Amino acid sequence: MEITGSIKEVRAQVKEWRKQGLTVGLVPTMGYLHEGHKSLIDRAVLENDKVVVSDFVNPIQFGVNEDLSTYPRDIEADKKLCEAAGAALIFHPEPEEMYAPDFSTYVETEHVSAGLCGKTRPTHFRGVCTVVSKLFNIVAPDKAYFGQKDAQQLAVIRRMVRDLNMDIEIIGCPIIREADGLAKSSRNTYLSPEERKAALVLSKAIFHGEEMVKNGEKKSDVILTEMKQIIEAEPLAKIDYVEMVDADSIETVEEVKGRVLVAMAVYIGKTRLIDNFIV
Amino acid sequence: MEITGSIKEVRAQVKEWRKQGLTVGLVPTMGYLHEGHKSLIDRAVLENDKVVVSDFVNPIQFGVNEDLSTYPRDIEADKKLCEAAGAALIFHPEPEEMYAPDFSTYVETEHVSAGLCGKTRPTHFRGVCTVVSKLFNIVAPDKAYFGQKDAQQLAVIRRMVRDLNMDIEIIGCPIIREADGLAKSSRNTYLSPEERKAALVLSKAIFHGEEMVKNGEKKSDVILTEMKQIIEAEPLAKIDYVEMVDADSIETVEEVKGRVLVAMAVYIGKTRLIDNFIV
Repeated sequence: MEITGSIKEVRAQVKEWRKQGLTVGLVPTMGYLHEGHKSLIDRAVLENDKVVVSDFVNPIQFGVNEDLSTYPRDIEADKKLCEAAGAALIFHPEPEEMYAPDFSTYVETEHVSAGLCGKTRPTHFRGVCTVVSKLFNIVAPDKAYFGQKDAQQLAVIRRMVRDLNMDIEIIGCPIIREADGLAKSSRNTYLSPEERKAALVLSKAIFHGEEMVKNGEKKSDVILTEMKQIIEAEPLAKIDYVEMVDADSIETVEEVKGRVLVAMAVYIGKTRLIDNFIV
Repeated sequence: MEITGSIKEVRAQVKEWRKQGLTVGLVPTMGYLHEGHKSLIDRAVLENDKVVVSDFVNPIQFGVNEDLSTYPRDIEADKKLCEAAGAALIFHPEPEEMYAPDFSTYVETEHVSAGLCGKTRPTHFRGVCTVVSKLFNIVAPDKAYFGQKDAQQLAVIRRMVRDLNMDIEIIGCPIIREADGLAKSSRNTYLSPEERKAALVLSKAIFHGEEMVKNGEKKSDVILTEMKQIIEAEPLAKIDYVEMVDADSIETVEEVKGRVLVAMAVYIGKTRLIDNFIV
């Protein structure tokens, strides 16, 4: 496995593979890799001849008061995980390699990025779309892998790929959870032991909502009310949003119909966590 | 030469060429092709094995009060010109093929697109960057050709390509003029015989400004004042802007230093024409 911070080197390597007729998968990450990322790499390794993992904490998807400076990093552990999973190349650039001082081009998907996390993080998806566009242009993969945990991100990227005619297949992969239910996230590392326990209200509410749908409940307000009650029972939890939306357009829906996403963002202390299910 | 309105067919054709190891050049146009476009196609034919000409009046680069509905079209004449010039494929899509009803992704290059034409046409370059991104993703050319007549557009596209790491070489080609000096433009067809004569003040002012620089004049205000006087002497002409800017950043400069663009937009009656020179 190779690791490079150079765009030129990534391009040269991928072109070499292309000459050999090999297919290429991309797993874009912000590093500090966990089992969730590993599941993406595993699937990419199964479906492509060569897998590139990008490992880059993208500054432009963080708001001014967000956790850019404290976001956890551990490139040595990431290398081991990628190597063991069978990735061929890690792209680990410095911010200066990605953003010139006079960088000024942004890709933005309106509407789909407006609701849910877009309300609290108004420039977040613009930063995501921009960096993903750059990674797609640098790596030119056949397929790219994203976790369903960031369900709105996945919807935004699918829309961007469709709208801009990017010739890349987007693969969404299921949420990976801890044994007790908490969705795996690099941000879980921020939680104190007490907060770690409190964070279980997210998955508890998710499982409860899923169960209600399975049992035939269709009405958004009925489902969301019960889910919110579970979260509000936890003193350390503060709801950012709990909503039911169309899984593709991210527009609010009143009842379960078609592909529906039930998503939440909840602060546990100062840590903002997300979770969701799709039916 | 083939002509198609189908994205799928363009992709399939280009992939076939790629398999054969052929290089591909793209000339993006809005059709109603003239000698200026022909010079781009000619150069593309010289430098690539296969040349694709896109012929599409892009609705999203027109403002609400602009000339989308009256923009001239003549696909039969365009076909003849492309065929004679040696293009291999015309991509001539319907707007519905390019823009889904819920289309919502835009590419925007800030700063570079803010001045000059961006002041009068605030959403113009967003529309240009978006459609050019789409065309680049559909055709995936090695090289793409743009006229220097749209100097700001060329600067915006170069910046977009750099910022988003698009793996495409952008080639700027010189302005082509009528025998009397008027820069070739599809919009010249809007001019009445009287306006056609009046329109000569643009190139007259351009040639005068160029001459001043050649003779050693460095000061922006001196050069621009004389150029404006030439235009203002024509009763049918109304200046939108006459400015001197850095040719790459499109930021105003006070004197000739480095690569400098002197650009103008002038209304002749209701027709807005542009012209420029670079030193």
